[in-house]
Amino acid sequence: MGTEQCLGFKAAGMHAGLKKDGELDLGLLYSETPAAVAAVFTRNQVQAAPVMLDRQRIFSGRTRAVIVNSGNANCCTGEPGLRDAARMGAAVAGVLGLAENDVLVASTGVIGQPLPIEKIETAAPALVGHLAADGFPQLARAIMTTDTEPKAVFRTGRAGEQPYHIAAVAKGAGMIRPDMATMLCFICTDADVPQPLLDRMLRRAVDASFNRISIDGDTSTNDTVILMANGQSGAGVENAADEKHFAALLEDMLLELAVWIVRDGEGVNKTVEIRVQGARTAADALQVADTIAHSPLVKTAFFGQDANWGRILAAAGRAGVSLDPDRLALFFDDVQMVAGGVGCGPEAEARATAVLKRPAFSVTLDLNQGTEAARLLTCDFSLDYVRINADYRT
Amino acid sequence: MGTEQCLGFKAAGMHAGLKKDGELDLGLLYSETPAAVAAVFTRNQVQAAPVMLDRQRIFSGRTRAVIVNSGNANCCTGEPGLRDAARMGAAVAGVLGLAENDVLVASTGVIGQPLPIEKIETAAPALVGHLAADGFPQLARAIMTTDTEPKAVFRTGRAGEQPYHIAAVAKGAGMIRPDMATMLCFICTDADVPQPLLDRMLRRAVDASFNRISIDGDTSTNDTVILMANGQSGAGVENAADEKHFAALLEDMLLELAVWIVRDGEGVNKTVEIRVQGARTAADALQVADTIAHSPLVKTAFFGQDANWGRILAAAGRAGVSLDPDRLALFFDDVQMVAGGVGCGPEAEARATAVLKRPAFSVTLDLNQGTEAARLLTCDFSLDYVRINADYRT
Repeated sequence: MGTEQCLGFKAAGMHAGLKKDGELDLGLLYSETPAAVAAVFTRNQVQAAPVMLDRQRIFSGRTRAVIVNSGNANCCTGEPGLRDAARMGAAVAGVLGLAENDVLVASTGVIGQPLPIEKIETAAPALVGHLAADGFPQLARAIMTTDTEPKAVFRTGRAGEQPYHIAAVAKGAGMIRPDMATMLCFICTDADVPQPLLDRMLRRAVDASFNRISIDGDTSTNDTVILMANGQSGAGVENAADEKHFAALLEDMLLELAVWIVRDGEGVNKTVEIRVQGARTAADALQVADTIAHSPLVKTAFFGQDANWGRILAAAGRAGVSLDPDRLALFFDDVQMVAGGVGCGPEAEARATAVLKRPAFSVTLDLNQGTEAARLLTCDFSLDYVRINADYRT
Repeated sequence: MGTEQCLGFKAAGMHAGLKKDGELDLGLLYSETPAAVAAVFTRNQVQAAPVMLDRQRIFSGRTRAVIVNSGNANCCTGEPGLRDAARMGAAVAGVLGLAENDVLVASTGVIGQPLPIEKIETAAPALVGHLAADGFPQLARAIMTTDTEPKAVFRTGRAGEQPYHIAAVAKGAGMIRPDMATMLCFICTDADVPQPLLDRMLRRAVDASFNRISIDGDTSTNDTVILMANGQSGAGVENAADEKHFAALLEDMLLELAVWIVRDGEGVNKTVEIRVQGARTAADALQVADTIAHSPLVKTAFFGQDANWGRILAAAGRAGVSLDPDRLALFFDDVQMVAGGVGCGPEAEARATAVLKRPAFSVTLDLNQGTEAARLLTCDFSLDYVRINADYRT
């Protein structure tokens, strides 16, 4: 088998008529044998119908398949939406000969419009027919909304002598904020991982990746990350060394996808890592980083390639964290721009301006009042972001 | 005297060389006799030098003049910035024959650049020479940054038989959020008002006006509202009826200025009142309104004239307030768009789309779980907002 496969898993993507222009809009991930499953969902209280359905079905700790559509979020659709989510799962369960409870469901797209469920039901047999061991690129394409490229990553690991595979597809683009995003991510592995361990490793990896990125500060109603493990490689993640290795691979994959999501965010030209250090507590550091990462004035300055450090200090000052303005130090990559709360002058400004022209750079704010730190990945706020989101439904 | 004057007060505006193109950039408000004074400043912990200076000088409860410049915020400028703020006040104190402590100072503009204090000192005698009873329009013009029009409002009141006047100038435009803004507002009255009452009425009026508007969610380092009362009309605000009348006039003026500031916000095409009702507590209502008012996805949809109610519900759902999605009702002006958490269908959609084409409209979200409510005034997030703020320093 190729390295872009995962034993006992098949994936598919097809056009079912939910999106215009014949683009792929319906996807399926299928395990030939029962798989342990863990999942993380949006914390938004307004939740899409498929999220409500999955929250019930995930309790068993096992699943066989995930069906997913793009082009319609099936959210704020009331009782009919819940019925449609169940029908969507039932459509592939019927063709695959599975129990309805063995299928998870996900949706992404516009909120508040009825799901065209008949189109999905009509497409279900063809969707199953498209299942292939090398079908991940099609699945990745089928879940895209405003993403400009499909996102799939693969890793090979080893438990003892036995190799195993992990494959993951994701979509992001808008409405991304710490604590998830309009973000879907489906991960599968042919390693054998006990469900409680799978759950723990997934939560930790999501926290270090998808929960550390921000595009526009909005949180989606549909965010879903699902990890399935079917054990078909014969490699068992059993001891502490195996766990550490698997957890590292998983975190690395999700971080790659998270960075990719920001880089491919709506109208994004710059990816910027906000690093806050010297804080009294990690929560303080995160709070300041979060406020900077979401400031429209800071983000438009990034877009304008303007080393406008005053806006960064102003954002820090309103973060609700006690700080001493006279101790602040600020760096763009390795160029120090502010020392003791005061600008470092025209030469530093010129060097910082050169940093701002890079497609990716870091902003480091040192509060100089402790030893705790936090990092967030954010992006610029561009004309294209506004264009994309002003016109999204039309 | 005209109705756009205030007895015993003079105002001036001139070009001192801080802005390009000869625009007015230095202003002065002067009381011929000692005036009671109250002030409200930014809550940002990063505060401009003039704010730090004024916080000291306001303790006396009396003042004679306010000097203000635009084009430079004198913020994050360290010890030299504090000296410059003091020199700025001293420059007009000298010419006017006042004690330095009798002059307040304000600045607005770019953060982090040294104030060109010599230009201000050189201009001080000419500035005093420009003082005139009808100089408020010049003062209003001198404090503008990205505002497109000067903002001055006038009212005439009556205490018993005796008429009095209130005049106010303000500037806003960007970085506006509840809890003030890059906002300066100078108000004077020739009524006689005891200082403690002046202070109380100002705080109440600011809370009902400037603290209920939002443009981009950033809070400025320089926000300052100053209210002076010199009693030169002979009208004394003494009893409860006088106080009520004065407070109503003041709140009405500041609300007019607040709405004007949003309407003239950076790149603003739509002013939108966010009304949240049916909340368990007023704090809950405000928290939900605030989250909606600052959501980039909601604001870009306003710009696109898109009745994208799903984004509004999604913002409410992440506000950190416990709510029941199935009880939500949403209205654009008087068009109901959502009932019981579900969209009201294509006809409502068509009518709502017509509302979105208006330059001003309201969004009402009913949580249906209590009796408390809150209102905030916000605006759309436009291509011009990004253009203005990407290029601001260049």
